[in-house]
Amino acid sequence: MNKFLFGLLLTSCSALGGNSQYVNPFIGTSNFGATHPGAQYPNALASVSPFNVAHGGEQNKFEKDAAWNSRVYIHENRYLTGFSHLNLSGVGCPDAGVLLLMPTTGPLELDAREYGSSYSNEQASPGYYSAQLNKYAVKAEVTSSLRTGLSRFTFPAGQSNVLLNLGLGLTNETGASLKWVSEQEVEGSRMLGTFCYHDEDVRPVFFVARFSKAPKTFGVWKKMPRYQNVEADWIGYNDSIKPYPGYRQLLSGDDIGAWLSFDTREQEAIEVKLGISFVSMENARENLDTEQPGFEFDKLRIEAQKAWDALLDRVEVEGSDEQKTLFYTALYHSLIHPNILQDANGDYPLMGQQGVGNSKQNRYTVYSLWDTHRNVHPLLSLLYPELQADMVRSAVAMAKESGWLPKWELYGMETQVMVGDPATAMIADSYLRGIRDFDVNAAYGAMVRAAEQREHNLLRPENPDYLTLGYVPVDDEGPYDGSVATSLEYYLADFNLAQLALALGKQEDHDKYLARALNYRTLFDADTGMLRPKNRKGEWLTPFDPELGRNFEPAPGYIEGNAWNYRFYVPHDTPGLIQLLGGPEAFLRQLDATFDTGNFDMGNEPDITYPFLYNYLEGQSWRTSRRVRELIAAHFGNHPGGLPGNDDTGTMSTWLAFSMLGIYPVSPGMMDYALFRPSFSKVKIHLSAEYYPGKQFVIENPVGDLDSDKPEAFTLNGRSIDKPFVTHEDIIKGGVLKVK
Amino acid sequence: MNKFLFGLLLTSCSALGGNSQYVNPFIGTSNFGATHPGAQYPNALASVSPFNVAHGGEQNKFEKDAAWNSRVYIHENRYLTGFSHLNLSGVGCPDAGVLLLMPTTGPLELDAREYGSSYSNEQASPGYYSAQLNKYAVKAEVTSSLRTGLSRFTFPAGQSNVLLNLGLGLTNETGASLKWVSEQEVEGSRMLGTFCYHDEDVRPVFFVARFSKAPKTFGVWKKMPRYQNVEADWIGYNDSIKPYPGYRQLLSGDDIGAWLSFDTREQEAIEVKLGISFVSMENARENLDTEQPGFEFDKLRIEAQKAWDALLDRVEVEGSDEQKTLFYTALYHSLIHPNILQDANGDYPLMGQQGVGNSKQNRYTVYSLWDTHRNVHPLLSLLYPELQADMVRSAVAMAKESGWLPKWELYGMETQVMVGDPATAMIADSYLRGIRDFDVNAAYGAMVRAAEQREHNLLRPENPDYLTLGYVPVDDEGPYDGSVATSLEYYLADFNLAQLALALGKQEDHDKYLARALNYRTLFDADTGMLRPKNRKGEWLTPFDPELGRNFEPAPGYIEGNAWNYRFYVPHDTPGLIQLLGGPEAFLRQLDATFDTGNFDMGNEPDITYPFLYNYLEGQSWRTSRRVRELIAAHFGNHPGGLPGNDDTGTMSTWLAFSMLGIYPVSPGMMDYALFRPSFSKVKIHLSAEYYPGKQFVIENPVGDLDSDKPEAFTLNGRSIDKPFVTHEDIIKGGVLKVK
Repeated sequence: MNKFLFGLLLTSCSALGGNSQYVNPFIGTSNFGATHPGAQYPNALASVSPFNVAHGGEQNKFEKDAAWNSRVYIHENRYLTGFSHLNLSGVGCPDAGVLLLMPTTGPLELDAREYGSSYSNEQASPGYYSAQLNKYAVKAEVTSSLRTGLSRFTFPAGQSNVLLNLGLGLTNETGASLKWVSEQEVEGSRMLGTFCYHDEDVRPVFFVARFSKAPKTFGVWKKMPRYQNVEADWIGYNDSIKPYPGYRQLLSGDDIGAWLSFDTREQEAIEVKLGISFVSMENARENLDTEQPGFEFDKLRIEAQKAWDALLDRVEVEGSDEQKTLFYTALYHSLIHPNILQDANGDYPLMGQQGVGNSKQNRYTVYSLWDTHRNVHPLLSLLYPELQADMVRSAVAMAKESGWLPKWELYGMETQVMVGDPATAMIADSYLRGIRDFDVNAAYGAMVRAAEQREHNLLRPENPDYLTLGYVPVDDEGPYDGSVATSLEYYLADFNLAQLALALGKQEDHDKYLARALNYRTLFDADTGMLRPKNRKGEWLTPFDPELGRNFEPAPGYIEGNAWNYRFYVPHDTPGLIQLLGGPEAFLRQLDATFDTGNFDMGNEPDITYPFLYNYLEGQSWRTSRRVRELIAAHFGNHPGGLPGNDDTGTMSTWLAFSMLGIYPVSPGMMDYALFRPSFSKVKIHLSAEYYPGKQFVIENPVGDLDSDKPEAFTLNGRSIDKPFVTHEDIIKGGVLKVK
Repeated sequence: MNKFLFGLLLTSCSALGGNSQYVNPFIGTSNFGATHPGAQYPNALASVSPFNVAHGGEQNKFEKDAAWNSRVYIHENRYLTGFSHLNLSGVGCPDAGVLLLMPTTGPLELDAREYGSSYSNEQASPGYYSAQLNKYAVKAEVTSSLRTGLSRFTFPAGQSNVLLNLGLGLTNETGASLKWVSEQEVEGSRMLGTFCYHDEDVRPVFFVARFSKAPKTFGVWKKMPRYQNVEADWIGYNDSIKPYPGYRQLLSGDDIGAWLSFDTREQEAIEVKLGISFVSMENARENLDTEQPGFEFDKLRIEAQKAWDALLDRVEVEGSDEQKTLFYTALYHSLIHPNILQDANGDYPLMGQQGVGNSKQNRYTVYSLWDTHRNVHPLLSLLYPELQADMVRSAVAMAKESGWLPKWELYGMETQVMVGDPATAMIADSYLRGIRDFDVNAAYGAMVRAAEQREHNLLRPENPDYLTLGYVPVDDEGPYDGSVATSLEYYLADFNLAQLALALGKQEDHDKYLARALNYRTLFDADTGMLRPKNRKGEWLTPFDPELGRNFEPAPGYIEGNAWNYRFYVPHDTPGLIQLLGGPEAFLRQLDATFDTGNFDMGNEPDITYPFLYNYLEGQSWRTSRRVRELIAAHFGNHPGGLPGNDDTGTMSTWLAFSMLGIYPVSPGMMDYALFRPSFSKVKIHLSAEYYPGKQFVIENPVGDLDSDKPEAFTLNGRSIDKPFVTHEDIIKGGVLKVK
């Protein structure tokens, strides 16, 4: 049923390198990177992360309820309250971070404000995390598979406990149910959702947890409400946690949990495996039985490592260990989301709330497409086309089920976060790159619906104005749907639709959508040189401060940025924009100014292709190399703060991965990669035999020139290249690119 | 599977009277009677009661959270927030009162603080209740069967809604889950328990609700927690109720509900049926399908009425309508608990938490035995021996499952409320009365265990002292386990065990337990004439105030009473007590003093047999008639306050029923009924052909003597009776008792 897993296991038997050794899962766990260092299988539904963002007083610098916090783990924090089994990596909104297992010792304490512990000796590698819990002298180790987690807690002698907290979590949604099926198995559900504080988007995740040893005692607990008056005098547990020893029936409530207590010998290890499903408890159990028939921690850990090696070894690089760590950790972060959603038996929740589907093909979820359509999916298309094919098929299936392609899809819910129509770009780009084993007609139909439907358009709510005016006017704009930003996303989507139309032989469609894509020009203000907000009458927004929005404050026209951040964001027509801005010299001046005046934001998506725009200016590609080198040095590193902010489900990491390889896709829907000097002396990309004609693509780069500002010269298969670009076609045919 | 239901339906075809017409379900709904006026099928698990004890400001004089409140309905209150489908009648502790259906009209309002309504035109009869909801101009009617309820809401034209609130309830336990199975069916569970604020006793009740019409829209809701800091700025529903329109997945939480909205025509009726189970949602559905295959309100209502007639018609009385109302309402209240627990398919939760049993015989629950062993079970044994047989069998099954007979059993949980070992008395008494179709050896074994086990004795925790000293010493007594009260209950249990031993041919056991039963004499203090607390050394409690405890304040030695209330409570040896107190004249003086000094409490159990003790004094039985007449007049009536306080699952009502018949069983385990003047000119008891040799027992009483203080003379089948008693044997043989 699971082609992906099967393929990985086969591949892992090959003799490829083992680049997972270079991954440092702590990168991104500070500086709001929002990655987690926990056990993570590639593109897996389950993961097991240390959870250290609740309570803890001064031990936790960042507390989840004290701020907008989207992180289950923060490197600066010290108070751990468990290991969560459903986690998002590099997202900006709180959700998931639920199903928390915590080992403790001594008398039972069920209040996370009390039972948390500091920790030491943290170790993390792909598929594995461990730490010593100082308060309890317990060694906690976790590993995971696609849909299950496994924890091994090594206890001292005496009373030892394992708690499963269904109340605590990163999500702002509440509610859970659980039931002890036997004294070694508990099943239940946990509500999650309200992602980005969107109230509508909620659903339960189901789980089954199984324990390697029969407990001495077990039970459940619930936080009781605050009673008043005479009831407060009588009730035993008022606004406090009530234990129910031995309780075996269904328990439900906002804040509940389950516990077991054991008599352990010195250094006795107890393992807990937990399977999850978004369909049912039965499926969670089947997932657990399928992926973990026994309790074999070391075996599962090695399987995860091999799965990572199989993916990471598709790219071989020559460079320092530090460089390899940055690169392979970036690839690692790019291979976490989208992730599998379907159960081992093929079941998955249909998009929306209409029931359960079943498919033999992998169904993916967690599409942060406003971020990832820019580079993550092009990266996957190049390196892991079989994964990208599954992701495209999943997106098309969502459209079949719900009528709409995804925008920010989370566990079958369309959360509507951010703007634009990024799935059109994501899918068209994949098709153009050669990934065509999906229902392109259905995809095209869904794209056209988004492009054309005027009313009740889920993806392009601004269509009534956009289709009439050729841009989104600033008039009625809300604080988080910038008119210029939205317009630019629509233009790019229309460009991609035009390219797909062309590929499908729909010339008229192509012409129509291409014309739309070039309407960006109507937003170009020659006076300021900016893409400037315009009202319905065609008047420029006045007054207008191009710097407003630089610190994420609301700025009319722009979302998560200012006019500078958006001024070059027409990646499908950079040459046209160069002309609008007055030609190459003027463009160069403005491009440099963007960086030099601090109006380039490495941490957010709209401008992340700007360093590569120098390649469009003759003789200036060395500036790309320099900017990229500077940006890597300034914003990335082998330490917890080594990402320039939120990883945006791998988008920042993908920027780093491409940048270190010396190639960057200029735009979704365009098959050019900008060329610049890689971080490595040699790169070897093993191409997918299933999708691409070439076997491998090699980039050679003399190490000594790494820090030089000398303009590069490129040869492809021995022939000199006029412009600093190669096409996707060039790469997938295989060959050697030399950087001189 | 359900012999009871089947039998009733057959019987209801007979031509018996139809005495359900005299029942006034509002009796006991004020003065803390704790009965409810809702739709109630005999000894049914489900019932549908108006719920008017939540919120409402000044409209509700008594609010459930403002006091110790065990009532779902209080006649003085005016703000109704729904109809609850699981209700206890005449209990002193809050529990159940859950699964609340509420019809509303207009825009959806999900907050019970807002959506409640005043009401008018209340009507209630056995199996039926209706009222007009003033705020909405909705007529609400409810009826019920053994395990299901049915509501018919007649709406005005416009938007009409039905709410199912799983948060609100009388119980102090919280937590629920629900799921829309189709747009006309919702299933789920609701936690209940913490009965009498006993924290351990919780469990879910499962339900399936089905609606007669497809809604226009439907959804669920949840009360969201209070968020703080930046989260409070972002979250849409902070400490408020969040609707989830169209949500079809599992929802769980502390405070949740489901709603439907309809477009209704003027006077359009929508019906909602709801089945419950303590085993599973599947069983709740099967119960619903079995007992309500369609939506037939009037049919179900008539079935309930016929079931009541079949039971109530077993006693025919001649008297005023007012007297009939008091009597049949009393019988009605005595036929609510214990009630059926098992599902239509025979499943029931095993006693304790060990799983599910299945039986072809009826399994009963809600045993408030400290109350009911005194008179309710003797009444059932006399009038409804087939019910009592099921109740005895259920109690014995509980002992087989859990090791212990019940004391205060609630839905399979032993809540341990009150003191003593009342099941021994309840079962032995039934056996002696001729109900013997149960496993008496198992019962006897369980009784002996309770009588003999010294440590960890669930029923008789005071055994270590009791068995050593012959009484429970006052030394270590807690505030709610009076040493004298507990001793007296043990004596009575031992007496019953002795009587059963004798019946089973166990002479040695008989002698041993009879000797124990007479140990009450060691607590008799000749100086005060009281049964007085004594410490382990044998010293009387000093100082000692026999009046202390009169107002339910804690009194050392006594529970829910004072020394006066307990001073004659050796019903198995009243002649012996008479001697201890100095002979008949002294006894008469003290007995009169009890009443005349206000130390008789009509509202509580320990002393309710005292009015009948005059019968033990030669020539004084007319005082019994007078006391009974006075007590009925003072404490009972055809109005909401017409019970002398909490009905104690029918114990007060049973007192009234026996008292109006002119016979009262002197003690569990004793086959004598005290005789006195009935309220009726004629009584005809139709005896059970299955259990008893006689066909009917008739009591004739000339009306003109009702208010006379003239000593009565009694003849049985024409022969004069020496002492004012008849035996159970006399009655069940059939015959005529004349009161002259």
